[in-house]
Formats: sequence, structure tokens, C-alpha cells
Amino acid sequence: MTRTATTLPTALDLAEALIACPSVTPATGLVFDCLEAQLKPLGFTVHRALSGAAPDGPVENLYAVRRGPPGSRHFAFAGHLDVVPPGEGWSSGPFLPERRGNLLYGRGAVDMKGSIAAMVAAAAQVPAEAGTLSFLITGDEEGPAVHGTLALIDHLRAVGDQPDLCLVGEPTSVQRLGDMAKIGRRGSVNVWIEVAGKEGHVAYPHLADNPVPRLVALLAELDALVLDEGTDWFQPSNLEITEIVVGNPATNVIPSKASARLSIRFNDRHTGASLSALVDEIARRHGGTTRPVVSGEAFLTEPGAFSALLVAAVEAETGITPELSTTGGTSDARFLKAVCPVIEFGLCNATMHKRDEAVAIEDLDTLARIYARVALAALAADGSGGEAAA
Amino acid sequence: MTRTATTLPTALDLAEALIACPSVTPATGLVFDCLEAQLKPLGFTVHRALSGAAPDGPVENLYAVRRGPPGSRHFAFAGHLDVVPPGEGWSSGPFLPERRGNLLYGRGAVDMKGSIAAMVAAAAQVPAEAGTLSFLITGDEEGPAVHGTLALIDHLRAVGDQPDLCLVGEPTSVQRLGDMAKIGRRGSVNVWIEVAGKEGHVAYPHLADNPVPRLVALLAELDALVLDEGTDWFQPSNLEITEIVVGNPATNVIPSKASARLSIRFNDRHTGASLSALVDEIARRHGGTTRPVVSGEAFLTEPGAFSALLVAAVEAETGITPELSTTGGTSDARFLKAVCPVIEFGLCNATMHKRDEAVAIEDLDTLARIYARVALAALAADGSGGEAAA
Repeated sequence: MTRTATTLPTALDLAEALIACPSVTPATGLVFDCLEAQLKPLGFTVHRALSGAAPDGPVENLYAVRRGPPGSRHFAFAGHLDVVPPGEGWSSGPFLPERRGNLLYGRGAVDMKGSIAAMVAAAAQVPAEAGTLSFLITGDEEGPAVHGTLALIDHLRAVGDQPDLCLVGEPTSVQRLGDMAKIGRRGSVNVWIEVAGKEGHVAYPHLADNPVPRLVALLAELDALVLDEGTDWFQPSNLEITEIVVGNPATNVIPSKASARLSIRFNDRHTGASLSALVDEIARRHGGTTRPVVSGEAFLTEPGAFSALLVAAVEAETGITPELSTTGGTSDARFLKAVCPVIEFGLCNATMHKRDEAVAIEDLDTLARIYARVALAALAADGSGGEAAA
Repeated sequence: MTRTATTLPTALDLAEALIACPSVTPATGLVFDCLEAQLKPLGFTVHRALSGAAPDGPVENLYAVRRGPPGSRHFAFAGHLDVVPPGEGWSSGPFLPERRGNLLYGRGAVDMKGSIAAMVAAAAQVPAEAGTLSFLITGDEEGPAVHGTLALIDHLRAVGDQPDLCLVGEPTSVQRLGDMAKIGRRGSVNVWIEVAGKEGHVAYPHLADNPVPRLVALLAELDALVLDEGTDWFQPSNLEITEIVVGNPATNVIPSKASARLSIRFNDRHTGASLSALVDEIARRHGGTTRPVVSGEAFLTEPGAFSALLVAAVEAETGITPELSTTGGTSDARFLKAVCPVIEFGLCNATMHKRDEAVAIEDLDTLARIYARVALAALAADGSGGEAAA
């Protein structure tokens, strides 16, 4: 590995070290040892704890804090060290970081060990007297996420720490580093619907009660719903029918039950509970029952001081003005929004979750400089909504 | 076994002998040996042939004929010696005929070895000079029925024999022997429908194409169809959605295809082809494709001379006037209708296809007398539509 002239490790060095620690979700141990070893020399106090049990756990969570002067503001970097399984067909070992050309390859290069490495490199550039800086790092974002950031938030509350602003390092950039940040995410709810009937022979339909036409009618009604027209910041909420199961191999039998599954991605006009109730009302009218599972509520950090300082930092380092978007899937920001305003910004996501995941090597340093500017501006911000200078 | 005073075997004796020959569909061999041995002493010439191969075959088919004077009319008894599998839980061996109280137990007692025994006993009561009498007996009615009665019809055509009327011995009676005959059956067509789409992530629906809403819309349109209001002799045609398959276990994935299966039972206002075309037209309008399988066309022997002589025979022996019905499933009459007018009449069907299948012992003799009256009347009928006396 190369070293720069400074004594501080580069984001590239840090990223390689993290990628070399296998950490398929849920993650514990080695990769956290590695991050702890990176943070301690920078003056951080590191708290680590395990949460949950098999099969969703155990999960390791890390809270590192470097306190500024009394009364100073508190800025948090948040992220995850777990990665999705690498799958087959890699050109090099997914946990053997390899530089080829301008790219660094390895599982987690962009999602999101590369971002965490940039956060650490950024922290090294932020003087301790600028304010309180912390890391909220979980090993359970790519899985069910029930033992991860939620446990970290519990810990924050237990120790009485309260970040003023939080940046999540998800890979939000699309074509070029800096072209997109996420100021919100849609919520997500899955609903299982079942309609019961009475089995019988197709030749004697009056002795049976086919549940399929009722399921079809209720799905047609659900599919015709216009949940909303979108908002200033969100696209319209969307309902997809993702599964129907009847399970009747016999051509001459009227089945006894039929079921379906919906996935609704919704904006801040709705809650998981309001949509669950809406689906249930329609299902019941057709003789169906429902079982909703809300996996995340919508969140929005309305454009203002926080997004302004992020935009300024990105523009200063890349010349690009990031789009403030609410598109895409969910992230741990859905939990952190309960703590403080939260925005997501990170590397280019083209290779995330794919084989040969890779990051442009120069993006790691650029991202570290952006993160440093964001941290300095966030710690300097007066909280009145005005833009802070880096 | 008891013997009556006459030298002719009783329907009960004949039924016991047939039940004692296991003949789960498709049937060959022993049970046909047994029937041949019963028919030869009555002057019948017996032709037997195997048709088809595993898994639907081989199937044995038997054509027995006793020719009357030159130019005499030809009446055919039709039926099947194969039976559905006995299943578990019988009080006595399903292929060990057992008399308990007023009942004879055994697989096939009513469907339809009991009826065939009554046909043989009836043939013994019909003088050879009354006309040409024949038996069209297959070993493949309870299965796919592709190597059974169709092969018998081919043989009839090959030898140049042409029955004028045909009676199928299906167990058509419901509460009491004689309360129902079938003068028609609905047709049956199954249609498989598939709608193709494009797989994708539920968070990015604009990059995918969910086929489920199109399937739901086309099924709703099909379910709303009124195929007809019924006819003088048929109940309304009926469409049932019997299966839907999406096969998508992932809650966050928009599936790539969705399929369904219909079962349509239809009256003589339709054909399998006309309904297949109707479903296909609707499916295509929603981007779907179809694969129809017609398992039988509707048939109707309109009430007239044939039904009148059957009604007269039933009334004379039981005092009951049979309802002339077209309800229920399909039978080999759907094939025989191509040869000559066909009506189904037989024993009470309460125990058919069930464990402890049983026939009322006295019904066997009564049915034999009814069949003898029908045969004599059919052979005497002048074909002008007038009712024939027994």
C-alpha cells in the first residue's frame, strides 16, 4: 500500500483495510476492530456493543465520539460496515481489495466502506476544537435492520448525547460523485391479503365459493387507487402487486383460498398505518383479511440550512450542484430522522450490490474533503437556517 | 353366492364377479375376461383390443355384438369397467364384494360395474330376434379417456356397425333409482393464460413492467362475462378462475410474469373453440396469451322418442318419472353423441368415488328390468319419434 506524505492515512488506505475484513450482514468483530483502530488515534472514544441473536444477529454497533469544547455543536457521521453477500463471478476476491486502473475493487467499496473510510479521513481533517464529532456505525443495515441503528439510537439516548445534524454515507451519487443527495426517502409497507372461500368441484359451483374472483376484484380496486400526485419533494406514492398465490394444481377444483402481497412505497402524505388501514378497508369489503408489515416510514429533511451547507461543500470540491432527491429505496436515515435532521450523501452507486463492486480511487479523497467541509460547516452553523461557510 | 331358481345369472351375481376383479383406471385383462365370460353364453361375439401406452395406457376396450335378423335395429349399452382408486378406510376390501344388510359393497358397485351387470342381465332377457344388441365397454373413462371410447368408436366405424340408440350406464340417479337421467352434458374447456412483464425493483417501478395488474384486469373482465342465461335444457355456462401463479418470493421485486388458469363448463350455445377464441381476444387486449385445452364439447339429446321410451321403462318398474337433466360433470357420452342419440341412466350416485361405495341390492334387478325394457323398446322403435312399448 502507498502512503501519502502526510502522517494521516488516506481514505484509500482506510477503505482497503475495511474491505479486507469480510462482513456479510449481520456483521460483528473484525471489521469493527479495524474501524476502532482507525478512530482511536484521532481522539475518538469508542463504544461497541452486540445486539440481537441468530438468525438476524448478533449485530455489532459502534458509537465513537470526540467531544468538542463544552456547549459546542454535535455532528454525526452514520453508516454501516455490513455488506450484502458477494455472490459469484468476481474478477478478484470480493474481500481482497484490489486496485486496477483508476478503480478499487471489493465488496463494500461504495456501499459503504469507502464512504466510512472517507468519513474517517474527514475526521482527521476536522480539529477537535471545532465541535463534537461522532460516528454511528452499525453491522445491520443490509439485513432486517432491527438490531442496528435502532440500538445505536437507544444508546445515544441512554448516554444523553444528541447530534444536531447527521449525514448518512449511503452511495447516493449516480453518474458522477456529487450529482445527487437524498433529503428524504419514501416509506415502505408490505401487505399480505388473504381471501377465504369454499373448495368444490368446478361442475358444481353452487356448492363451492370461489375466492379468486373476490381477490381479483379487490386487487383491481387497489391497483386503481391514486394514493397521491406526489409532492414538491416526493414522487407519487406507488403500489405494486408483487405476488398472488392460489396453489391449486387440479383443473377441476375450485380452490378454498387465494392470497396476494402488495408493496407500497409512499411519501410523507401517508404513514404505514394509514395505508395499512386503507388496504384493509378495501380488502374487507371483498371478504379479505390483511397482514401489514411496515418496514419504514417516509422521512423528509426539507431543504434549508443543512442541505445548503452540503450543496456548498459538494460544489466547492466537484463543481457539481447535487440534486436533492427522495427517490430510491429505504436506508437507516428512516430511523435517524427521529434524532435530528438527516441527509444522505456518498459515492456513485452503479456497482452497489453487484459483482466487481468498485469505487473510483480519486472519489475517495474528494468525498473525504466534502465530508470535512460538511462537518466543519455543520459544527459552525448557528442553527438559524443560514448557510455556514467551511 | 346364492343362485336364483332360473338358470340365468342375476345382476347381483354378475356385479360381484366384476367387482372382484381389481381394475383401477386404466384397466385391462382380468375384469374384461370376466365380462367376456358373462356375454359369450348369451350369444355375443366379443372383440377386445388394447390401445395406448403408459402412463395413460394400455387400455382395454371391448365390443360385444349379438346380431339380430337382417335389417333389424341396433341398440348399444355403453359403459366402463375401470374404477377410481379405492383410497383408504374401507370397512371391507374394496375389491372383495361384500353384502351387508340390503347393500352390496365394493369399488365400482355403482360406478359402474353394477350397471354393466344389470346390462348383461337385461341382455339375457332380450330375445336375439328382437334386434342387434351390443356392448361398448372401455377401461379408460375415469382417466384421461383418450384411449377408450374414442377407440371403440373407431372400431365401430371400421367394422361398419352403427347403433341407432345408445344408453350409457353412468350412475345418474340421485335419491332413488330412477329419479334422474342425463340427456346431455355440458362441455369443458380449461384455458391457461400468461401475461409477460419486466422484472424490477419495487422502488423503481418506471424501470419495470408489472404484469400482475394486467392479469388482474383481464381476469376481472373474464369473471364479469355472462356467457349465457341457460337454455331450456341447460343451466348457464360457467367460468371459474381455478389458479393464479406469480411465483415471486421477494417482497421488493416486481415479477416478470403472471399466469392463471380457467375452467369453463359450457352448454350447447358454445363450443370449446368459440370460448377459447373469446378468452384469447380478451387476454390479448390486456397483453396476455392463452393456451386452451378442450376436454369435451357439450351434447344434448333433445327429449323425444328415445327419452320417452326410457321414461316409460323407468315409470313401469319404479313408479318414478325421471328428471331429464344436463347437470354434473362429463362422461363418455360426449364421444358417443357423434355416433347416435345417447342418454345416460343408471344407479344412485351417492357413494360413487367414495370409500364404502355400495349399491342397494334390489336396485340391481330393478335396473336390469329397466334396461331390458329400454332395449326392447329401442329395438322396436320405428325411428319416427313415437314412443315404443316394451
